[in-house]
Amino acid sequence: MPVVDMPVTSEFELIARHFARPTQGEGVELGIGDDSALLWPTPGHQLVVSVDTSVSEIHFPREAPPHAIGHRALAVSLSDLAAMGARPRWCLMALMLTHADDEWLAEFARGFHALADVHGVALAGGDVTRGTLAIGVTVHGELPYGQALKRSGARAGDLVVVTGSLGSAHGGLRAWQNGERDLDDPLLVAYLLPQPRLEAGRLLRDLATAAIDISDGLLADLGHLCTASGVGADLDASSIPREPILTHRLGEADALQAALTGGDDYELLLALPPDSLDEARSALATVGVSLTPVGRFSSSPGIRGVSCAGPAGWQHFPGAMS
Amino acid sequence: MPVVDMPVTSEFELIARHFARPTQGEGVELGIGDDSALLWPTPGHQLVVSVDTSVSEIHFPREAPPHAIGHRALAVSLSDLAAMGARPRWCLMALMLTHADDEWLAEFARGFHALADVHGVALAGGDVTRGTLAIGVTVHGELPYGQALKRSGARAGDLVVVTGSLGSAHGGLRAWQNGERDLDDPLLVAYLLPQPRLEAGRLLRDLATAAIDISDGLLADLGHLCTASGVGADLDASSIPREPILTHRLGEADALQAALTGGDDYELLLALPPDSLDEARSALATVGVSLTPVGRFSSSPGIRGVSCAGPAGWQHFPGAMS
Repeated sequence: MPVVDMPVTSEFELIARHFARPTQGEGVELGIGDDSALLWPTPGHQLVVSVDTSVSEIHFPREAPPHAIGHRALAVSLSDLAAMGARPRWCLMALMLTHADDEWLAEFARGFHALADVHGVALAGGDVTRGTLAIGVTVHGELPYGQALKRSGARAGDLVVVTGSLGSAHGGLRAWQNGERDLDDPLLVAYLLPQPRLEAGRLLRDLATAAIDISDGLLADLGHLCTASGVGADLDASSIPREPILTHRLGEADALQAALTGGDDYELLLALPPDSLDEARSALATVGVSLTPVGRFSSSPGIRGVSCAGPAGWQHFPGAMS
Repeated sequence: MPVVDMPVTSEFELIARHFARPTQGEGVELGIGDDSALLWPTPGHQLVVSVDTSVSEIHFPREAPPHAIGHRALAVSLSDLAAMGARPRWCLMALMLTHADDEWLAEFARGFHALADVHGVALAGGDVTRGTLAIGVTVHGELPYGQALKRSGARAGDLVVVTGSLGSAHGGLRAWQNGERDLDDPLLVAYLLPQPRLEAGRLLRDLATAAIDISDGLLADLGHLCTASGVGADLDASSIPREPILTHRLGEADALQAALTGGDDYELLLALPPDSLDEARSALATVGVSLTPVGRFSSSPGIRGVSCAGPAGWQHFPGAMS
């Protein structure tokens, strides 16, 4: 019973229909439509679970294309599974809406389902409520027992390596703020349509000693990983991979700053024994993902090799419990 | 990277500390503090998963005691596991806050953890964001393979039975709206501190043919169960269990209306073969929960036995996908 008057259920049942699919998905005995979803875990596997909430005007622009909002809300949750090396299986969506717009929802659902299909993730349930536009996505993945990549395994001497290139999402945010709306802009695509590195996480699971996804920025997330592992790191800032268009657009200094502190790239940051680098690169080449050493872990606490201008300002909302 | 300026991470890391516990909980290898939680499912069991979002001023009053808001947010999600007959194991919390108030959060966390401890649920992760005050709780339960209670199993001839008493939560909402703030009021307690019927769901799992939790009101949820099962129902409105104080407070007509359509009671509605009634009642007596037949399922579609005044107005926000 609501405290205040609200639209009737039927409006939100209509919304739910945008998310129902003809088939429920592998391992789903009961999906949307009962009190809970009923799932079949794979014997001998651990369950890997994470939730991320994307809030309008904090994590994405309210006026972003709705298919991108749907894609991005799922992508940021899947990125947490990528960082563990897990295979994604199922997700639940808690959707909060200011109002019901059928056309917007159809596009939002299209973007969400398209990414879900790429990675074989079944939407097994969820709910719809009224409030700030926000999307909470709980993702469930699986891993063979004891195979998880954690933040805590990095050792002094391991390489600091990153997938893909960094700073582009920040460049895309700047482009959006400057009025760019064309999804042909590769920086805007990096910001609005990030690709979670699920294949890379799985391929490097047995080679890397630790991993984290880069959501808060390289320095911030490297800091989290160093703290969890009880190590420090020496970075070679000049080796941090960046797209030429980012440097062209922002200039050298701002592009480096974006790569160090920008956040939202959803690449993986890993600790890798040096003698595994060639094998790791070859493995990732099969899925078209580059891998670049950007420094080395050390027994001395702290992160060295970047100017003081780097770390300043990288703290940003939101904090996360996981 | 936020689109707008927001408080620094550290504020929200402080918040997260309210939710960290000395021990992670049974079956939790990694909880709060890595990219994902890492859980150990029980071999031979299915996973039962549900998410519910409680939004301020829609699902609960903003000024309700914070420990009750924490309790209630978890309770409504656990109620979905109760309706499946599942054993609760883990949960994740997506907390959205308008601002950070340390004292409020400590009380909120106290209420959440107290209920979690009663039912052996470990908080394995979550996130904190800024927006409308809202709490999304994803719960994970387990069931031996093939043992789930679903909405779809009711057969013509089965009894319609309910646990506990109905309408009290609506009476509590009315009391709150009339300025009652004393948690010694049993109706206010029913509204703000509902008890998910987890033991009842597990005890009736092998006896009942179908179940749903009563969140939207008896008529609405009976309608959902009938639709899923392809049956109708004949209700005996006079037999619907109500607390004497509810009738005393609201009068006979309004108390019946509250019991039929009020919602928020989080009791269970089940389909039970008549010859299982005695055994079911004896089982529930061991956990102090009453079980009352209120009608019978029928092969004729529709719900009969209540006046037209009953169903009107029971549709309310929010709809749910699961």
